Amino acid sequence: MSSIGLSTPPHVVNVGADLLAETVAGQAVPVTNVDWRPPMPGTEADLATVALDPLRRDANARALAAVLDVRARLVDVAPASELLGLERGQFLHAGPPIDWARAAGPLRGALMGAAALEGLVSDPEDAVALFESGSSVSFEPCHHRSAVGPMAGVVSPSMWMWVLEDDASGRRTYCTLNEGLGKVLRYGAYGPEVLERLRWMTDVLGPLFKTAVQEAAEPVDVTGILTQMLQMGDEAHNRNRAGTLMLLRDLGPSMVTSGAAPTDVAEALRFVGGNDHFFLNLAMPACKLALDAARGSDGSTMVVAMARNGTDFGIQTAGTGDEWFTGPAQLADGLYLGDYGPDDANPDIGDSAITETAGIGGFAMATAPAIVRFVGGSVPDALATTRRMHEITLGENPRWTIPILEFQGTPTGIDVTKVCRTGILPQINTGMAGKVAGVGQVGAGLVTPPAEIFPKALAALARRTRARASAQG
Amino acid sequence: MSSIGLSTPPHVVNVGADLLAETVAGQAVPVTNVDWRPPMPGTEADLATVALDPLRRDANARALAAVLDVRARLVDVAPASELLGLERGQFLHAGPPIDWARAAGPLRGALMGAAALEGLVSDPEDAVALFESGSSVSFEPCHHRSAVGPMAGVVSPSMWMWVLEDDASGRRTYCTLNEGLGKVLRYGAYGPEVLERLRWMTDVLGPLFKTAVQEAAEPVDVTGILTQMLQMGDEAHNRNRAGTLMLLRDLGPSMVTSGAAPTDVAEALRFVGGNDHFFLNLAMPACKLALDAARGSDGSTMVVAMARNGTDFGIQTAGTGDEWFTGPAQLADGLYLGDYGPDDANPDIGDSAITETAGIGGFAMATAPAIVRFVGGSVPDALATTRRMHEITLGENPRWTIPILEFQGTPTGIDVTKVCRTGILPQINTGMAGKVAGVGQVGAGLVTPPAEIFPKALAALARRTRARASAQG
Repeated sequence: MSSIGLSTPPHVVNVGADLLAETVAGQAVPVTNVDWRPPMPGTEADLATVALDPLRRDANARALAAVLDVRARLVDVAPASELLGLERGQFLHAGPPIDWARAAGPLRGALMGAAALEGLVSDPEDAVALFESGSSVSFEPCHHRSAVGPMAGVVSPSMWMWVLEDDASGRRTYCTLNEGLGKVLRYGAYGPEVLERLRWMTDVLGPLFKTAVQEAAEPVDVTGILTQMLQMGDEAHNRNRAGTLMLLRDLGPSMVTSGAAPTDVAEALRFVGGNDHFFLNLAMPACKLALDAARGSDGSTMVVAMARNGTDFGIQTAGTGDEWFTGPAQLADGLYLGDYGPDDANPDIGDSAITETAGIGGFAMATAPAIVRFVGGSVPDALATTRRMHEITLGENPRWTIPILEFQGTPTGIDVTKVCRTGILPQINTGMAGKVAGVGQVGAGLVTPPAEIFPKALAALARRTRARASAQG
Repeated sequence: MSSIGLSTPPHVVNVGADLLAETVAGQAVPVTNVDWRPPMPGTEADLATVALDPLRRDANARALAAVLDVRARLVDVAPASELLGLERGQFLHAGPPIDWARAAGPLRGALMGAAALEGLVSDPEDAVALFESGSSVSFEPCHHRSAVGPMAGVVSPSMWMWVLEDDASGRRTYCTLNEGLGKVLRYGAYGPEVLERLRWMTDVLGPLFKTAVQEAAEPVDVTGILTQMLQMGDEAHNRNRAGTLMLLRDLGPSMVTSGAAPTDVAEALRFVGGNDHFFLNLAMPACKLALDAARGSDGSTMVVAMARNGTDFGIQTAGTGDEWFTGPAQLADGLYLGDYGPDDANPDIGDSAITETAGIGGFAMATAPAIVRFVGGSVPDALATTRRMHEITLGENPRWTIPILEFQGTPTGIDVTKVCRTGILPQINTGMAGKVAGVGQVGAGLVTPPAEIFPKALAALARRTRARASAQG
């Protein structure tokens, strides 16, 4: 027990002990947390092995530094066929690899809609037979092609994609243009209005953005916009309102002088301005661009991707190459649109947890207290969540800071060993898709990965540690 | 002394007592403040008189309700000559009335520049003789013409103004278009680049906005944008970043289809997008439009205007008609641009304290913690300031809420009796002008009104109370 002296005695009523500790900590008053949590069951031996890995400390420091060093700039917009060599019948999707038989409703719906968009079928329903046979179609994770996709994350050859580049390395990442909310392909809807919007995006919006990006006075600084967003109530996963407005600010002038018809430019401005989530599709590849800098760091226990396909939740780490560690995707707890309820929701889906992997989204909820009106929870929860995420991360991002926490950097670089040692799971803000193909969005909420994937990743890291040790011995 | 039990004993180091109380309160934990402050010296008798005024309670409730009920929409943009009947040689300025002899450097500089803009002189320096003689020129407060002006607040006939209207009453308020920061007329600069920019605003920007406002799908909802800004880190006095972006979003499409040359549209978008303060000139008249609804409320002790001309700080109250209660404007405490320091700054100037009068600006600092990097102070100070302003205001604004304070409404309706009873002065965020005419902005900071103007207003309210009592007796 502790006694705090106050010259003006306040009546503090019914303060939950943890809440007060979090509150004081949230105000940047130094708090030493001596609470001890048991490690995840069965991880003790692997934790001991990895803790003694002589590579770990430096590998993690270098991995984190590499991530923090990346500056993402918007350098091009072009169709996926051109950028990724995606051919007729080839598709990308969110999350770890999966086959049609195990694919969730919204992923199936998005693939069906994309098949119709590409002219493989005229009715999306006819695509079911196509994907069941698998003879002329194939799909693989966005992450395998330097891309990320929100929700179902389906990419087909004719879809235009943002191209982000890291100045220093020349590395690039890709993401489609955001369609808006409600009945949209990425939530598994494939009705005529969905396909019509996608065709307009292909015919008008993509080419307009390409000219605007090429003619802008300088490349849009996506990492810099993310810095500003965190000062403006966006956590860049489920709130991208300020980011969307800053993109309009930066691209608007060169859209106007692009030579496109004023009515098309005005419609494009209205489309972007009417969709507060538009910037998500730039935030995500910026996060992937940063995290990819840490891939292939032997000995590093840092997570470089968290991604869900609607059935499986998968992670990859810096020290385990392209291997996915997967478990069942969870149902989010949150707020529902209209008459939808928990029975309508599909388990967690999308590559958008790349934002949390990079230290924003749910990890930066403290800077976006208004998010609780969209994903549920309370303002103190939002502050406590960011604080808690510092316990499972390797460091802070000096560029992405949270004013209300006295400009503390966002918690960055999820450490598999810290997750296993504390049992604290990464907090993800997410949209919720309807579980039936064709429905679309049903809500938004909070979710975590399945706990078992972190011991799986830890075991793989421990195997590598032991293999290195025996090779040297 | 009080003891707070914690199951996880934290090490709380060197917490200032008031800071902790404010912090806990800022987190919406109920705190009963039993601290007693003496009333302002010499106000006891007037406080007793006004406290017993049978009109006061209802008059204040109605005045506050009237303010909260106003919804400001952007309905037109036109020159001051047309809107206000301002004629050649007539000017408006910020703050209470003043003559040339007592006018501060930045107000003189702005009048000199405006005289050149209007072609009364070719060299702004020649305007000094004109204003000294006073034969063909005159100036009066913006507030006397339903207008407000930031800093020097000078309006001349050719300047274009925003027109805001309250749907319900049809009442209107006016404000010029914002010029940007640094060397600008409102900070007292009048060099060739200042006048050139003002001419471009008159020739290109004003007419372009007029068409865009007329052709927009619906009038821009300025009150609604202010609601959003408070969720996006803007306090709408010294941070108007999100508001500026939302204005661009709302007017951009009709600017594009206005028929203006694309290069002019692009230049206008760049001009607005490059000036995070652009929206201030819409926030201010929206606040005036709301507060003017309370004017002429017999018995009300609510402040309806706080305004400064660089020499005098003046307030008006709902219960005392058009009378100004004035005292010497104070120097702000804040951060300076470049090599400027306290010796370069003019005392407080501008009508922009209308934002604080309406419950935002300094009163809403808690929602804009990043503001401390511009005006100085600390994040806990920002939270504490909003909390403190609730002690001198009549109520909260249910439309303008602060997420980090669990969506508590902004403290609204400064009560002269509460200020006198507690000695707590309204907190204002402000820009700082150079004290020498022609210099421009030198910094930004925090300031309060001179304390003595509140007892003066209280005395006038008490006189009216006594006059009513004796008329009835």
